Amino acid sequence: MEEERSPRAAGEPAPEPGPAPELERKNEDGVEDPEDPESTGGGGGISSLEQPLLKRSTTLTASHLAIVGAKVSHIESLDYEIIENDLFKHDWRSRSNVEVLQYIFLKWAMAFLVGLLTGVIASLINLAIENITGLKMLQMVTLVREKRYWAGFLYFAGINFGLTFVAAVLCVVFAPTAAGPGIPEIKAYLNGVDTPNMFGAPQLIKKGMLLQIIGSIGAVSSGMDLGKEGPLVHIGACLANLLSQGGEGRWRLRWRWLRYFNNDRDRRDLITCGASSGVCAAFRAPVGGVLFALEEVATWWRSALLWRTFFSTATVVVVLRGFIEVCRNGRCGMFGEGGLILFDVSDVTVRYHVGDLLPVTLVGVLGGLLGALYNHVLHQVLRLYNLINAKGRLAKLVLALAVSVFTSAGLYLLPFAVPCTPCDAVHGAACPTVGKSGNFKQFNCPDGFYNDLASLLHATNTDATRNIFSTGTAGEFRLDSLLIFFAIYCVLGLFTFGIAVPSGLFLPIILMGSAYGRITALVLARFVHIDHGLYAVLGAAALMSGSMRMTVSLCVIFLELTNNLLLLPITMFVLLIAKTVGDAFNPSIYEIILDLKGLPFLEPKPETWMKDLTVGELAAAKPRAVTLQVVEKVSTIVEVLRSTAHNGFPVLDRPRPGVSELHGLVLRNHLMAVLRKRWFLAEKRRTEEWEAREKFSSTELAEKAGSVDEVQLSPEELDMYIDLHPFTNTTPYTVVETMSVAKAVVLFRTCALRHMLIIPKFQGLEISPIVGILTRQDLRAHNILGAFPHLANKRKVH
Amino acid sequence: MEEERSPRAAGEPAPEPGPAPELERKNEDGVEDPEDPESTGGGGGISSLEQPLLKRSTTLTASHLAIVGAKVSHIESLDYEIIENDLFKHDWRSRSNVEVLQYIFLKWAMAFLVGLLTGVIASLINLAIENITGLKMLQMVTLVREKRYWAGFLYFAGINFGLTFVAAVLCVVFAPTAAGPGIPEIKAYLNGVDTPNMFGAPQLIKKGMLLQIIGSIGAVSSGMDLGKEGPLVHIGACLANLLSQGGEGRWRLRWRWLRYFNNDRDRRDLITCGASSGVCAAFRAPVGGVLFALEEVATWWRSALLWRTFFSTATVVVVLRGFIEVCRNGRCGMFGEGGLILFDVSDVTVRYHVGDLLPVTLVGVLGGLLGALYNHVLHQVLRLYNLINAKGRLAKLVLALAVSVFTSAGLYLLPFAVPCTPCDAVHGAACPTVGKSGNFKQFNCPDGFYNDLASLLHATNTDATRNIFSTGTAGEFRLDSLLIFFAIYCVLGLFTFGIAVPSGLFLPIILMGSAYGRITALVLARFVHIDHGLYAVLGAAALMSGSMRMTVSLCVIFLELTNNLLLLPITMFVLLIAKTVGDAFNPSIYEIILDLKGLPFLEPKPETWMKDLTVGELAAAKPRAVTLQVVEKVSTIVEVLRSTAHNGFPVLDRPRPGVSELHGLVLRNHLMAVLRKRWFLAEKRRTEEWEAREKFSSTELAEKAGSVDEVQLSPEELDMYIDLHPFTNTTPYTVVETMSVAKAVVLFRTCALRHMLIIPKFQGLEISPIVGILTRQDLRAHNILGAFPHLANKRKVH
Repeated sequence: MEEERSPRAAGEPAPEPGPAPELERKNEDGVEDPEDPESTGGGGGISSLEQPLLKRSTTLTASHLAIVGAKVSHIESLDYEIIENDLFKHDWRSRSNVEVLQYIFLKWAMAFLVGLLTGVIASLINLAIENITGLKMLQMVTLVREKRYWAGFLYFAGINFGLTFVAAVLCVVFAPTAAGPGIPEIKAYLNGVDTPNMFGAPQLIKKGMLLQIIGSIGAVSSGMDLGKEGPLVHIGACLANLLSQGGEGRWRLRWRWLRYFNNDRDRRDLITCGASSGVCAAFRAPVGGVLFALEEVATWWRSALLWRTFFSTATVVVVLRGFIEVCRNGRCGMFGEGGLILFDVSDVTVRYHVGDLLPVTLVGVLGGLLGALYNHVLHQVLRLYNLINAKGRLAKLVLALAVSVFTSAGLYLLPFAVPCTPCDAVHGAACPTVGKSGNFKQFNCPDGFYNDLASLLHATNTDATRNIFSTGTAGEFRLDSLLIFFAIYCVLGLFTFGIAVPSGLFLPIILMGSAYGRITALVLARFVHIDHGLYAVLGAAALMSGSMRMTVSLCVIFLELTNNLLLLPITMFVLLIAKTVGDAFNPSIYEIILDLKGLPFLEPKPETWMKDLTVGELAAAKPRAVTLQVVEKVSTIVEVLRSTAHNGFPVLDRPRPGVSELHGLVLRNHLMAVLRKRWFLAEKRRTEEWEAREKFSSTELAEKAGSVDEVQLSPEELDMYIDLHPFTNTTPYTVVETMSVAKAVVLFRTCALRHMLIIPKFQGLEISPIVGILTRQDLRAHNILGAFPHLANKRKVH
Repeated sequence: MEEERSPRAAGEPAPEPGPAPELERKNEDGVEDPEDPESTGGGGGISSLEQPLLKRSTTLTASHLAIVGAKVSHIESLDYEIIENDLFKHDWRSRSNVEVLQYIFLKWAMAFLVGLLTGVIASLINLAIENITGLKMLQMVTLVREKRYWAGFLYFAGINFGLTFVAAVLCVVFAPTAAGPGIPEIKAYLNGVDTPNMFGAPQLIKKGMLLQIIGSIGAVSSGMDLGKEGPLVHIGACLANLLSQGGEGRWRLRWRWLRYFNNDRDRRDLITCGASSGVCAAFRAPVGGVLFALEEVATWWRSALLWRTFFSTATVVVVLRGFIEVCRNGRCGMFGEGGLILFDVSDVTVRYHVGDLLPVTLVGVLGGLLGALYNHVLHQVLRLYNLINAKGRLAKLVLALAVSVFTSAGLYLLPFAVPCTPCDAVHGAACPTVGKSGNFKQFNCPDGFYNDLASLLHATNTDATRNIFSTGTAGEFRLDSLLIFFAIYCVLGLFTFGIAVPSGLFLPIILMGSAYGRITALVLARFVHIDHGLYAVLGAAALMSGSMRMTVSLCVIFLELTNNLLLLPITMFVLLIAKTVGDAFNPSIYEIILDLKGLPFLEPKPETWMKDLTVGELAAAKPRAVTLQVVEKVSTIVEVLRSTAHNGFPVLDRPRPGVSELHGLVLRNHLMAVLRKRWFLAEKRRTEEWEAREKFSSTELAEKAGSVDEVQLSPEELDMYIDLHPFTNTTPYTVVETMSVAKAVVLFRTCALRHMLIIPKFQGLEISPIVGILTRQDLRAHNILGAFPHLANKRKVH
């Protein structure tokens, strides 16, 4: 077997620049989607899925703009492995104690800043949303009370249309990646997949974040069925990214302190803090935020990070609390404790009765079924929307506006369909209310009566949640109102998510879930001994679990939302059932979106059939790895960089004649740094250690690669040599060719690799020291099955 | 470099059985402590730290009984790596769908059983403790009220003496490993270190658990300053271990279903569930239990396990709740809601004032300082106790009884030192109380007066906690009483922990912390706007954080204890400060105990100086690896097994003359299985696949190795051959010799390895395909520094 390989593998990879075969390989890489105008012509040009096994199947017409479920075209892997080359080692060894302390201080300062800024931004967003919606509703209700129903509708729909227009235009024109929830992209980022536009191009980050803030305010205030959690998580992560780069564009701090953060690992940690802060800001759930990041978002985790993330979320909570204190006495317009306190039932005593077992179990099972159904239908809707969104900017805008008009119509008209309910004397002045947030909205009813559906529909989403969650209101909502509410929010929840505005998934699901929870409680009233409001909470939890398949973090988020520990065991029970039922049908909604986007997410567990395949077989199915010699001709390097999209190249050495040794792995961006600096040698020689060290700083080496065409080299320069010794990572992780793919996947994921070298079981004089190179794409189940379809018949074991 | 190694590494490892050099090597292994009579003469004989680099330094006289801080002599590594040999692959492939479903069902059923049984045992322990202590206190107080002070003291001290005697005798005579907290051992187990006596020898598990239960009841009821959390965690883990083996001794279920659990990985997962359940049972904190296991105990973690652990703790909570319901109306004697509800302040409204910042910060800083001091002094006390405990069983018993008498004297006499306080009319009939749990104990005071120190000292530890945590009692406790309480519990907390009874660390620390929290509140009363009871909670949290250095899990445990979310931000703040301050001085208490016990715990992060050392250099500093040929003589294998304590042997192959290839790694217990079955070949040949498959089941291969002397072989048999092909794991994880130790440690720990093979950078005809083999001991910082002391000068980077 080794002998077979040796003749083609030994020696230099491209002895004479031959572009034809190399370019052929490029198309096999499957990154460059021919239907995608941006990816082939794009600036950087390095859309590097790094030597993937196969062209990804494109069942959808790919859109180059990252609207929710649309395929993402530019993908880069991140370097979470420590690249131990000579320069790094020197740089690291020469750090003084002061610099180490700087680094530690900065890590904490940044975690603090992320928390602080996320908290402030979340407060401002809430302030804006509550005020805009409050004023809008007040005016609309006034028109209705004057029986000017059409005027009321036009006013209501018009304002919503305008707000949606602003949000959608911002998204469509300026920051396409601001649309959608952001969580899947961040999940992918923390898994090691970079979608460069996620945080915007570097100079766009701040603008993108501003757009996201304004877009989120517009979208949520327009009354559409979407939440601010997704955008908040995205904003938190953007903030973290921005800070780790020392600022933006012109004002970018080229602070010496920051150079230690110019690596993917520290950025990843900070973005984890940002994502936690976002969740925390959305629900005021600090522990829940940390756990959400741990359970759902992050791939790698360690105790120290838990600690730092916790620090960020604690900061967020303190900021939010301060904000509520400031606004307590109506100093913030319509904002009371508004969007920040969803639900507080700490004063409700929960007693369990055996009779509750039936409805509670039902809530759990229904949560799982509905969640799975929601995932399935949403998947179809997103595919449909992708087709629409791919038609261009105008199509996206029209889609968003159509959804807005439909939403306005539903919210405005449906309350007219239900009869008015007389107020109970118990509630006193609280019933009915006009133009305030709270239950018992009077709307079109005579004095002393209230419209229960209006209480749910004519409010911000958070207000609606608070109303439906409210305790001691078992008789408030009529069954038909709740059914209508459930139906309209099912439709809205499915058709709103994919449009081109910043949107979160949590709140739509919570609204749906709380509705069916209350419906269950009403229908099975004779078994129910717990407050109906708590059933709404359970329904929301169950549906979230059924759709998102989280457990511990959801449990803690709901614990923190309800502030009532006694509800915990029952919440756990419901979550367990819902997740189990949901898992029987389809994967979680985030996995579906990741898949739709075509992000090469690496699952935590290898498939069992991977045990039947060796990495050697896997490597044999893909093109031979492109290798470099440790002292290589400039022309060869330029050719290799130009003709492949790979990000890492094995470097071979010939210490003695006839002996070929694996020296290590060199990265594309390091090669590019050398080309840009024109650090060439006239003769083929090994350099001294200090030569490269004087020339290159670690900051320069951390720069993105850029395009090879940017560097113009003269024929003389092309004829010179580069010594790769100082740039080569001499200790890449390797596996022997007989290793099973299952074990290789475990190694790849747990050690957070970007490249994994395969070495032969036996080396000899005439045998290449490298069998192949594996990347994220090669190890994805879907891609392997494409090349080895017979493996697909093996069953899955959980 | 390779050439140097080649002459001695090539070929067979021990061409002719030469015991002399092999035995020499044995002493270098450092496992067999010459001072330890059990380890050299012990039955199994395989005390396998597996080719460690160096003899561990023994600053302490080692004791062979695992009393708290004493060195553990028998240590085995666990196999968390999947051993992919032919037999495993066949066994795994031949599983039917039904078997896979059985496996999944069983996993969940076992998680459920672990939760259920832990919950039941915890309930019974509480019931016993509350009743014993209650009756004891009632009788004692009656004697005091009759002014028979000496009789009261003798009665009190006598009962305590008897209870301690029972607990200590059980521990000392029958189950030495039952002493101490158990958490460090479980932490080490989940890190991959097995101390075989931890769960008792297999036939002792049930007995050990019973002893632990009785011992824990005795120790806690005797009024000593120790908690039941540690023992509960240990019991949970023992239960998990017992279940995974299908039962115990004679009644052991040889159930076919269970064979899939006969591996270290599944056992590890189940033990994680058990440990979480234990914490959950101690504090009724289901989420806290899961997080405790995640943050403090477990080394490897994945989402699926989070989910299963959660299921276990949810079961525990339901059991506990059911138990409380049953006992609600006094049907369980003195047990009310006794030891199960520590603290409930959900009805207290917490308002923050800027003024509170000072005392709260002070509580945090003091928590860190005191925690670090506590760790330091406890370390010294444990070293002293080790010396005493090493003197034999009697010494241990006397030590335990002395502590008991001292405790009794302190608890009984100190309340006489404080004056009586008049009852406030506000408390009505609740003040004073006689012979009931609760505040305002009358003790020696006249009617209408109470003794505040007696309220704290004359109660179970949980009752005392509840009293000092109680809200609305700012005026109840006098400063001098609190100071006395703090002082006595500092002394008791330090001198109780190391004695030979089952003991937990949580409660002593909580008591100390709550005392200084309240003291701070009293002293700084004019800054304090929060209830003094909450300051006690904050003090407890801060001291725990300062000593144990946990954050998120502590925070959630306290959240679940207090059932009040509003306290969360302030708790977080205090925890952060205390941990930061504590970290500046010394490691956490668990790390100190792990270190005292000499358990080779693998830290999550490699030291930075490890980047300056390659695994090749590390391997060169230790004896040459003992290798086997793929078809090997029986006599050689016997000799190798007898003369080394290694658990894994690299297997070499010679596919062609002159070519030596690494075939894989074979485990000692697999070799022993072959020897026991006498599966020998008359001639040197390779067997067919089915031959071994017919002979060996995976259950047999999972058995522990046992001693090679158990197998008596005739000279003819010794002259035969064994084909190692079917038993060799052909895909062990390997590293190239140039890999830095830092990266090797990351690989070793993240992939949960037991052996790591080092392969040469370049192989050739005359070069051995294996440079060395690394195990847990080789990769521990302490051991490496012993061999490479110059590295110690490099500074540490966090």
